Amino acid sequence: MRPLITLLTDFGTADGYVAEMKGVLYSLAPEARVVDLSHDIAPQDVESARLAVARYWRRFPPQTIHLVVVDPGVGSERDALAVRSEDRVLIGPDNGVLSPALLVAGARAVSLQVPATASPTFHGRDLFAPVAARIAMGAPIDALGAAAESPTIRRTPEARRLGNGAIQGEVIAIDRYGNAITNIVAFPATQSREGEQAFVEVGGRTVPVARAYADVQPLGAVALCGSSGLLEIAVRDGNAAQTLGLGRGSTVTLHQQR
Amino acid sequence: MRPLITLLTDFGTADGYVAEMKGVLYSLAPEARVVDLSHDIAPQDVESARLAVARYWRRFPPQTIHLVVVDPGVGSERDALAVRSEDRVLIGPDNGVLSPALLVAGARAVSLQVPATASPTFHGRDLFAPVAARIAMGAPIDALGAAAESPTIRRTPEARRLGNGAIQGEVIAIDRYGNAITNIVAFPATQSREGEQAFVEVGGRTVPVARAYADVQPLGAVALCGSSGLLEIAVRDGNAAQTLGLGRGSTVTLHQQR
Amino acid sequence: MRPLITLLTDFGTADGYVAEMKGVLYSLAPEARVVDLSHDIAPQDVESARLAVARYWRRFPPQTIHLVVVDPGVGSERDALAVRSEDRVLIGPDNGVLSPALLVAGARAVSLQVPATASPTFHGRDLFAPVAARIAMGAPIDALGAAAESPTIRRTPEARRLGNGAIQGEVIAIDRYGNAITNIVAFPATQSREGEQAFVEVGGRTVPVARAYADVQPLGAVALCGSSGLLEIAVRDGNAAQTLGLGRGSTVTLHQQR
Repeated sequence: MRPLITLLTDFGTADGYVAEMKGVLYSLAPEARVVDLSHDIAPQDVESARLAVARYWRRFPPQTIHLVVVDPGVGSERDALAVRSEDRVLIGPDNGVLSPALLVAGARAVSLQVPATASPTFHGRDLFAPVAARIAMGAPIDALGAAAESPTIRRTPEARRLGNGAIQGEVIAIDRYGNAITNIVAFPATQSREGEQAFVEVGGRTVPVARAYADVQPLGAVALCGSSGLLEIAVRDGNAAQTLGLGRGSTVTLHQQR
Repeated sequence: MRPLITLLTDFGTADGYVAEMKGVLYSLAPEARVVDLSHDIAPQDVESARLAVARYWRRFPPQTIHLVVVDPGVGSERDALAVRSEDRVLIGPDNGVLSPALLVAGARAVSLQVPATASPTFHGRDLFAPVAARIAMGAPIDALGAAAESPTIRRTPEARRLGNGAIQGEVIAIDRYGNAITNIVAFPATQSREGEQAFVEVGGRTVPVARAYADVQPLGAVALCGSSGLLEIAVRDGNAAQTLGLGRGSTVTLHQQR
Repeated sequence: MRPLITLLTDFGTADGYVAEMKGVLYSLAPEARVVDLSHDIAPQDVESARLAVARYWRRFPPQTIHLVVVDPGVGSERDALAVRSEDRVLIGPDNGVLSPALLVAGARAVSLQVPATASPTFHGRDLFAPVAARIAMGAPIDALGAAAESPTIRRTPEARRLGNGAIQGEVIAIDRYGNAITNIVAFPATQSREGEQAFVEVGGRTVPVARAYADVQPLGAVALCGSSGLLEIAVRDGNAAQTLGLGRGSTVTLHQQR
């Protein structure tokens, strides 16, 4: 099977930076399949990139190489990493963006050597892409550097249980539809336990918990278990973030009454 | 030849949803070529997606698998379809987005079974991508479900002939350049029949009919036969929708005088 | 090795035009690998496209076919070109967008014949993609047309040396981060020559020259040698174009004092 290299960046595509990276990849690893995941991460938004990585990195087949270049610290003393975790390899700056793979038991990280000729503004092209190509051509990550001592870890803040049994969390992301993803771990049957009635307080409103968007009327607000297992606030056929005035950090409280 | 799977969604790419779908596709159909067509359909804009599908579905080679996930009704009772039409397969929700293929004689559609474990908010990942992978691996669509009885059909509204021989239609789409695409079927030689002079009334203006944008002066308005055979209003080196105040549904009248 | 065809356009993806081009490419050159570089060039912005082409065209392996369709003159008398330069082939309109390859010694260009059936609004689909496919299938460019006599050349304006040894140039592009790329050729060690202190005047401000973004405080302005060897103005963790009020054409003066 030809090696698979995925790309996640905040470069956009119009400036040609991604094009340069692809040129390097196809030149150094001619057999690789290069797969765009996104280049539309908001500029320098490491947190969004981390949440995206958490969603996708393990869904790809073993041996996939994930390049993740959201790198506001490029050219600084920040480290650069290659991580082997659950049979995938992830490559990117040591700013927490690779945390989802680093937090898995058995993960190993090496610290990458920056080539003397690398542009201090574009490690995506001059460091990370060449490393991805070397791995695609068969290099083990141990050949690429010494073990990284204490890679940067970023974590989603944890929700907490209130005295009354409610769970208080916060919005961690707004998606393209305006859905507000929270840090409250939900479960598909949140709304259906017998005799319980769950609801959510958010943005000064009380929102029912249901299974699917379609369980409420059009333009009705609803809380549900999102596709990655987190409680999510949506407005059917609408935009919850706008309607309810939500953004990252907005408080969300889940009540489960008997 | 390795199977070809195309993707059209309204997911954007920054949230990682498309990345999850690609992970599923590459895991379940490792030999497939996965081709991005667009992830920038406006959120939940089934109509735009349908018009795009009409443009491209038959231009790909036979056996291409087209995944189309613009799905405001996800998690509701709406059906999910696999359609075989003219030797291509299209997969998506039963909301009319697949109409261009369904309307062709000989098209067959099956109703897809939703896996019990599918997230009610993300059939792209949990239903449609796995089905696309199965087809790529050789499954016939009949193995995927029972015949769909009456799939949803969406049609472009038809233009009508007025008493004076003119044709009245409407704008059905505004493209990235601000060109206004209408539902009036044109023909490359619209402007050139001997002795005729054609013009268009639109936005309170009279616009000449020509062959190409370059047939008028810069910033001049022009009507012409667009690349899919429909009458289109453009402003050379400008934006017709903004200049003429056009949007979906704006009335357009084509006059052909002798 | 399967042929590599890259795509750069200003089409966006939502309207389905890129999808149509890909359908043509996969139909006519079934073995080709089709690589998106960008479809987000600003509409009809030939200059941005030219700068992007300059960045990437030679980074891809020999025999790569670069399709570049930013074509405000489509349907006019403007010529259409296939260019062979340094073992790559570039295909696009004769409006200067291919200049980076044309300016290399040994470049050869042929003038492409427009098929009688081509839509006068969509040469990307009806002329350029079929030509790219033919080349991918082995056709030499000489089989595609006669030598082009005097292809259009666009050049970056040159910076000039002032009486006091300073260099005066201008901003030629603003990238996604708000970095202002200039036409002043820099060199990685601009800031470090012994005994010198360099600084830049731009937007009424004096900006220090350094090696990397991280050499100044957050939100500090800095001038440095960008990744393509041109002087670039940035604001660390910020947006220089907004902060300093810069756009294409803004004057930039580099002073190197002893």
